[in-house]
This record gives sequence, structure tokens and C-alpha cells, in this order.
Amino acid sequence: MKKIAVIGLGLIGGSLALELKKNSWVTIYGIDKNPEHLEKALERGIIYEKAELDIIHEMDVVIIAVPVNIIPELSIQVLELIGENTLVFDVGSTKAAVCDAIRNHPKRKNFVALHPIAGTEFSGPEAAIYDLFTKKVNIICEKELSSPEMIERTISIFENLKMRNVFMDSPVQHDKHIAYVSHLSHISSFMLGKTVLEIEKDEKSIFNMAGSGFASTVRLAKSNPETWTPIFLQNRDNLLKSLEEYIKNLNQFKDILTRKSADDVLNIMEDTNRIKDVLAGIKHE
Amino acid sequence: MKKIAVIGLGLIGGSLALELKKNSWVTIYGIDKNPEHLEKALERGIIYEKAELDIIHEMDVVIIAVPVNIIPELSIQVLELIGENTLVFDVGSTKAAVCDAIRNHPKRKNFVALHPIAGTEFSGPEAAIYDLFTKKVNIICEKELSSPEMIERTISIFENLKMRNVFMDSPVQHDKHIAYVSHLSHISSFMLGKTVLEIEKDEKSIFNMAGSGFASTVRLAKSNPETWTPIFLQNRDNLLKSLEEYIKNLNQFKDILTRKSADDVLNIMEDTNRIKDVLAGIKHE
Repeated sequence: MKKIAVIGLGLIGGSLALELKKNSWVTIYGIDKNPEHLEKALERGIIYEKAELDIIHEMDVVIIAVPVNIIPELSIQVLELIGENTLVFDVGSTKAAVCDAIRNHPKRKNFVALHPIAGTEFSGPEAAIYDLFTKKVNIICEKELSSPEMIERTISIFENLKMRNVFMDSPVQHDKHIAYVSHLSHISSFMLGKTVLEIEKDEKSIFNMAGSGFASTVRLAKSNPETWTPIFLQNRDNLLKSLEEYIKNLNQFKDILTRKSADDVLNIMEDTNRIKDVLAGIKHE
Repeated sequence: MKKIAVIGLGLIGGSLALELKKNSWVTIYGIDKNPEHLEKALERGIIYEKAELDIIHEMDVVIIAVPVNIIPELSIQVLELIGENTLVFDVGSTKAAVCDAIRNHPKRKNFVALHPIAGTEFSGPEAAIYDLFTKKVNIICEKELSSPEMIERTISIFENLKMRNVFMDSPVQHDKHIAYVSHLSHISSFMLGKTVLEIEKDEKSIFNMAGSGFASTVRLAKSNPETWTPIFLQNRDNLLKSLEEYIKNLNQFKDILTRKSADDVLNIMEDTNRIKDVLAGIKHE
């Protein structure tokens, strides 16, 4: 039976473990510095047993699913411990830092830098669910630095999860793009939530009036700050750029609304309506 | 059989018609200046037949579900035409303008100013669906200006739709609150969509990477500009205020991110996480 270590048993690590267990015959060992996470993962049958890094050399696959600020150093540490045929991959939401950290490591070919684009606003092993990855996209960066065999095994694992693998040469490009289509959404959502919570202090009845549109737009403001703080800091430059453009657009809208220019208000929305075509391809939650 | 006229057969008018037809024995007459909407509504069995305003005097109930810039004048026009026992209500997303327009009308007591807080990002009679209103909130403004009988009939209609009726004395307060929990969400979503579409011009592959979080946050950017332009203009002052506060919060976040202050980034998100409790009460879509 194949042996898999999952380091970090949160939403992503936990859901991956559940899915791997469901789709194949594997033994999953859980490593997490939070003892409660380990207990919860055992209780829910997410892992076979809890472990420490000293088991790494026996593993067929090691999955690194910890916060992105920990990933670069931990990846090096794991590479030092693995056997010759161990596949290691990380699932972090940023890719430049980890790719930089391991680029010249002698065991770089055992590592695959990837990002399964999936998630919910919940966190911890209690948030782990089946089908989180189904029909979603898995980005694999710098594949030429991994051995063809490791890439093949990775592709097979994620195809088993019904994901579509997409190759992206540059981790720097990955981080730039993901700032716009993922990280910025989280900030816009958090700040919308903050704005409405602030006004609510004086206007007690306001949330009676919140509907499903508000719920959808503000959903990501429930996300885990411990996960997202390191992501925002690590992708800071790209995120600041995207945030600047977002604020510029909001100010532009404010200006045309101030001028009561109905045509401009209409046009700006009509132009943006073509986001429909883009969203048609994304599985909703 | 009770006779109901629905003026405006879009998402809200159409869905109301479907639900009224399902829950009671009624004949529904459709009025819409768009002939395609009328044909579509006939085809889908949303209305029994198409009609003009000259039928208003025979109606038991008249529902006004047109864009909010049309509602005030049309409401006066309808009140001129009704019989003594006709109940008239509008379902617009702003309430101050319509309440102002009819406040001193001799038939004001036949009118109920209300706002069923429900919707999707789709529009037109093809978007009309069952259960749109189930478990949602229906705000009734200035109820003391309607006759007790008309209020009672309104309550009964919306309870049949499984809605919770909430009374709110001031239409001005309604418009202020709804700016924050509905109208602002639409702008934040539209401008997020715009920002990402703009960067996409140069970065063709970006939408490969958009996940369900982005889809959720940007969902409202698919909304109908013809519906929302008049809402934004009519609620302009409140909306400008909320937009200003939203931009202020985004700038604050940008500042702490620029300063790389991990504690501040974490705290601002942790404080906002309590939006969870608020959202727990809202039915998601």
C-alpha cells in the first residue's frame, strides 16, 4: 500500500487526504504542529495515524499544505529527508517563493510546485470535504525542473481527483495572475464586510435587510486570517498593484455617480457584463 | 377568481407572478412596454394574457415591478385608475422616491410601499423562478399611510410566499441601509469584474485561474445595467457615502500591506470575521 504524508491538515490538506483515500488504496500519515488538528483528523478518519517528520524517508508521496510563509523552508527540510523515489508537492496559493527556495536543491526534480485552485471560506480539518477539487484547475509551475516521472505521477494523482492540470512556466506570472482572480477578491470581500459592520454599529436593524447578493459578495470575508495574512504578505507587490487598480475603478465609478451621468453608469456596467462569459466556465459554490 | 395585474415582467415581477399562480387561484394579466417580455411571459405561462393600463380598474391587486425611475410616476398613474378596493404595491429597491411621490395622493391608503429582498444576477421573464422569495425578508415602509385592510392583505400575500414581513417606518432609512447591504455590493462586484477584465487584456491565460471564490465575489457583476442604473442614481447620496467608506477601508488595507504589518493585516481580518454571525441568518444562493 502506498504511503502518503500530509503536512498541514487544514481545508486543503484535509480535503486532499479524504479524496486520495477515497480514490485509491493508500495509508495517510498526518503531520501538523497543532495537536487539535491531528486529533480531529484522526477522529474524522482523514488520517490513518499521526506522525512526525522522521517518517518522511519512508513515504511515496509528501504533500505540503501549510501556510505559505512556512512552505519554502519546510520544502527544503522535506527534500533533505526524502527517499530517491519520493514525490513531494506543495499546494500553496503563491508559487514564486517556494520555487525560488528550492530551485537549486539537488533533489529539486522530486518536487512539483502546484496550486489546486479550490477552496471554501472555512478552515481546519473540520472543513475538509469531498469533491472540493472536482472539475477545478490545478496549476503546475516550472515543470521542466521536476523529473518527467514525478510530473507524470502528479498528473495522474490530480486527474484521479477529476482536476484539469494546466502548466504555467513562470511562478512569477502565476503569482501576478492569482493576485487578480483570487487574492484581490478576498480583500474586496473583507473590506466590504468591514464597511457594513462599521455602519451597523449605529444602524442596528441593517442586517435584517441583507440578502443573498450581499452574502455572496462578502462570503470570502469568513476566510481564515491565519491562512490569508501570509498569502497577502508574500504576494504583496502584485496585490498592491491590483488593489490600486481596483480603487481607481471605484473612484471612477464614484465620479460618474457624483456627476449623475446615467449613460456612463450604464456603459461601465454593460462593458463589465461580459464577465458572464468568463464565469460560465467556473464551477459555482 | 381574483384578478392581478403585474406591470413589469422581469425577474421580480415574473417570479412574483409564478409564485402567486402556484399558491392561489388567480388570473394574472401582464403589462410591459417590451413586447418580447410579454410574449416570453405568455409562452412560459407566467401570465394569463397581455394587457394595457385600461384594465387596472377591474383588478383586485396591481403589482408595480418596473425600474425604480419609472415607479413614482407610474404609481400615481395607477392610483388614478384603480377601483375602491384595489391593492397596489411596488417592489422597487428604493423607497423614498415612490413614498414621496404618492404621500398626499387621495388613494394613498390603497398603496403599500414594499421591498421584497430577493433576486439573482439574471433578468427578464426568462429569469423568473419559483422559490425566489422563500424565507427572505419583505420590508414594508410607512405602513400607517396604507389602510389596515390593505396592510393585512399584503401581509397575507407575502406570508403565502413564505416571506418574513418587516415594518420600517422611514423610507429614507430604508434607502440608507439598503445602500450598504445591497447597492454597494453590486458596485464592489462590478468594479472587481472590471479590474480583472482590464488586466486580462494583457494576460490572456488569467481566467484559467479563476476559482469559485472569484465567481462568488463577482457574481453580481452579471446583473442587468438597465435595472441597476436607475437604482444607483436614485440612491446616489447614500451610495456615495457608503462607497467613500469602502474606498477608505481599502486604502487603509493598502497602507498596512505597504508597511508589511502582519499584525494589522491579521487583526483587520479577524475583526471582520464576525460577519459570519450575520451571514448565518441569510439564505445563500
